Amino acid sequence: MDIQLKDIWQAKEGLQDQVHKTGLSRSRSLDQLIGGQVYLKLENMQKTGSFKSRGAANRILNLSEEEAAKGVIAASAGNHAQGVALAAGNSGLTATIVMPEGAPLAKVAATKSYGAQVVLAGENYDDAYQKAMELQQETGATFVHAYDDPYIIAGQGTVGLEILEQLPEAEVILVPVGGGGLAAGVALAVKSLNPRIQVIGVEAANRSNTIADGIKVKKPGSITGPILEKYLDGMVQVDDEELAGAILLLLERAKVVTEGAGAATVAAALYKKFPTAGKKVVCIISGGNIDVNFMAQIIQRGMMKNGRYREITAALGDRPGALQHCLEIIAKEKGNVINVTHERNRVDIPINMVGVTVLIETRSFQHGEEILSALRRDGITLLKW
Amino acid sequence: MDIQLKDIWQAKEGLQDQVHKTGLSRSRSLDQLIGGQVYLKLENMQKTGSFKSRGAANRILNLSEEEAAKGVIAASAGNHAQGVALAAGNSGLTATIVMPEGAPLAKVAATKSYGAQVVLAGENYDDAYQKAMELQQETGATFVHAYDDPYIIAGQGTVGLEILEQLPEAEVILVPVGGGGLAAGVALAVKSLNPRIQVIGVEAANRSNTIADGIKVKKPGSITGPILEKYLDGMVQVDDEELAGAILLLLERAKVVTEGAGAATVAAALYKKFPTAGKKVVCIISGGNIDVNFMAQIIQRGMMKNGRYREITAALGDRPGALQHCLEIIAKEKGNVINVTHERNRVDIPINMVGVTVLIETRSFQHGEEILSALRRDGITLLKW
Repeated sequence: MDIQLKDIWQAKEGLQDQVHKTGLSRSRSLDQLIGGQVYLKLENMQKTGSFKSRGAANRILNLSEEEAAKGVIAASAGNHAQGVALAAGNSGLTATIVMPEGAPLAKVAATKSYGAQVVLAGENYDDAYQKAMELQQETGATFVHAYDDPYIIAGQGTVGLEILEQLPEAEVILVPVGGGGLAAGVALAVKSLNPRIQVIGVEAANRSNTIADGIKVKKPGSITGPILEKYLDGMVQVDDEELAGAILLLLERAKVVTEGAGAATVAAALYKKFPTAGKKVVCIISGGNIDVNFMAQIIQRGMMKNGRYREITAALGDRPGALQHCLEIIAKEKGNVINVTHERNRVDIPINMVGVTVLIETRSFQHGEEILSALRRDGITLLKW
Repeated sequence: MDIQLKDIWQAKEGLQDQVHKTGLSRSRSLDQLIGGQVYLKLENMQKTGSFKSRGAANRILNLSEEEAAKGVIAASAGNHAQGVALAAGNSGLTATIVMPEGAPLAKVAATKSYGAQVVLAGENYDDAYQKAMELQQETGATFVHAYDDPYIIAGQGTVGLEILEQLPEAEVILVPVGGGGLAAGVALAVKSLNPRIQVIGVEAANRSNTIADGIKVKKPGSITGPILEKYLDGMVQVDDEELAGAILLLLERAKVVTEGAGAATVAAALYKKFPTAGKKVVCIISGGNIDVNFMAQIIQRGMMKNGRYREITAALGDRPGALQHCLEIIAKEKGNVINVTHERNRVDIPINMVGVTVLIETRSFQHGEEILSALRRDGITLLKW
């Protein structure tokens, strides 16, 4: 089946009561960093926390009565699971979602909360997919593919129509690419209506091992691939460090919660993967379903990188009060001590000395340097800093 | 000066090009927890990250030419600083902001980035206020109070007008109360237009020591106080544990970044401080300027509370392979080890044994229990769990 602009218009019509028209938020704090006018299309605030609800709802609205009666089935460890579960629930269909056994509890619970039956099977997506295929054979339910399906692509394409409504003068639209459902739909919609707008795909540099789960797909599908070929103006890549930097920046400066794939477009703009100077740039924030534990790790790594933590290892005399004296110096410089390790039996220091490692919260790199200087002025031997 | 509804309408008119009309976002994931229909008024997405931009801009737009020529001055460690700096910058006025010496570097940098001159003085807000008063005497600049000023109150009241436009059928509006500028403005606007809507204030249980910096004010002002008396339908209190729980919940379930004060209204609804069952409840999210380091701490405390971390201390035989064997059991149960401490010289265990403390990431309380059982089945002596 060929997909055309009219299919996306039709999807938009059908989805009106099913999904949110998400906001397109201006982010002045990102402007300076990116060198352009930045707009964020907030699909992280979409129902179920990602754009996947759109395609899934459009697929389900287009089932025949006979198909609908047999329900739907899908395999997913992530956002597609929740999208299908919600859409099926809204249409009163039964849904079976096969998820890998290691799927995060929060995602399993969310999928169940929309009324879907969850089957846990295998170690990874491929195992879950196999299981879903078996179950499909038994039940005759319709398998809902995560991206390689014309109705899914048309549903995701509604994001593009909304952007054109909200900012007709957009000049560049950045869209994440994994399986390519979102990118194919958006590119088809936007380029058909206004070929002067550049639509750029952003993929993970290491497609099979990235923190951007949502785009951890080896390559686009057999339907999405040719559409991307035809309509995308370019494709750029971002690595995990860049993704982590973008997640932290969005959180701290734009107050926006994103998952890895959701931050990919901002990472591409931030790390200058293509020219944005003076342009109106729309970054599609595809989803916000990040594990908060992972977010805490990203924050802490970012803090270290930005000079807000400092780890210092010193050799102190093995006598009462030595550690206390060292901590006093740090306190005087207003360093906030987080962890202390005190080790007598280190082989890398003279006998009669102890090794002390202190993790300190600092205001800046310079503040860290001031603490170091104060320790050195006191004659303390630093081993690592 | 008496404040009336027309002053708030006038403020709304003036602010049109100065501040965002922020979104009112439906949050179905909070519905079940709160028992009602929850709407979030997203002032965390306001310019400068809080509602303070509104009042500050309204104050500055209402200066006489003579006053404007002398510029403005304010004292603040937080959001008011940024609000005044931005508003002054937009109107081409000079602004001096006095901040305590310990003010977070990020806030100082943000305030400067709007073109204000920042003076660091003293240890706390009171010191900064004193310094601002001295400077005001010297320069004749207009002092912009953070809440006790009719123009400030009218500016903040525009949040109330927007809510009535966005959800005329609102039944309860929750608003945080510190100095009372936002609450006074919103209550005055809402109750004047629709007295059937309940407007409830939310304050920090411990007003002088709370993680909600934005409402860490001993009591409302001499202008705001009487307005709150007259218009508020009630006042409830939330403590730090409740605030932390709400911050984590908003982050994880609603993808909304809030500071302590910003989460106060959701905390009040979540911890059932008053009846919300079946009602349309608007929670004003007053600001999103949370220190990310603090956010990481909140996440980790929340994880511990929700069974996603488990700390176990065991006594192991002091022989090669004992620690490895213990870790093997944990790995088999799919516990993810975060920290290990191995201590030979503990006084609370038999000689010939070592103490091992392991911090494990778990999927749930039950998962933690499974790991404990596996260790016990193996005959390992647990000291703490």
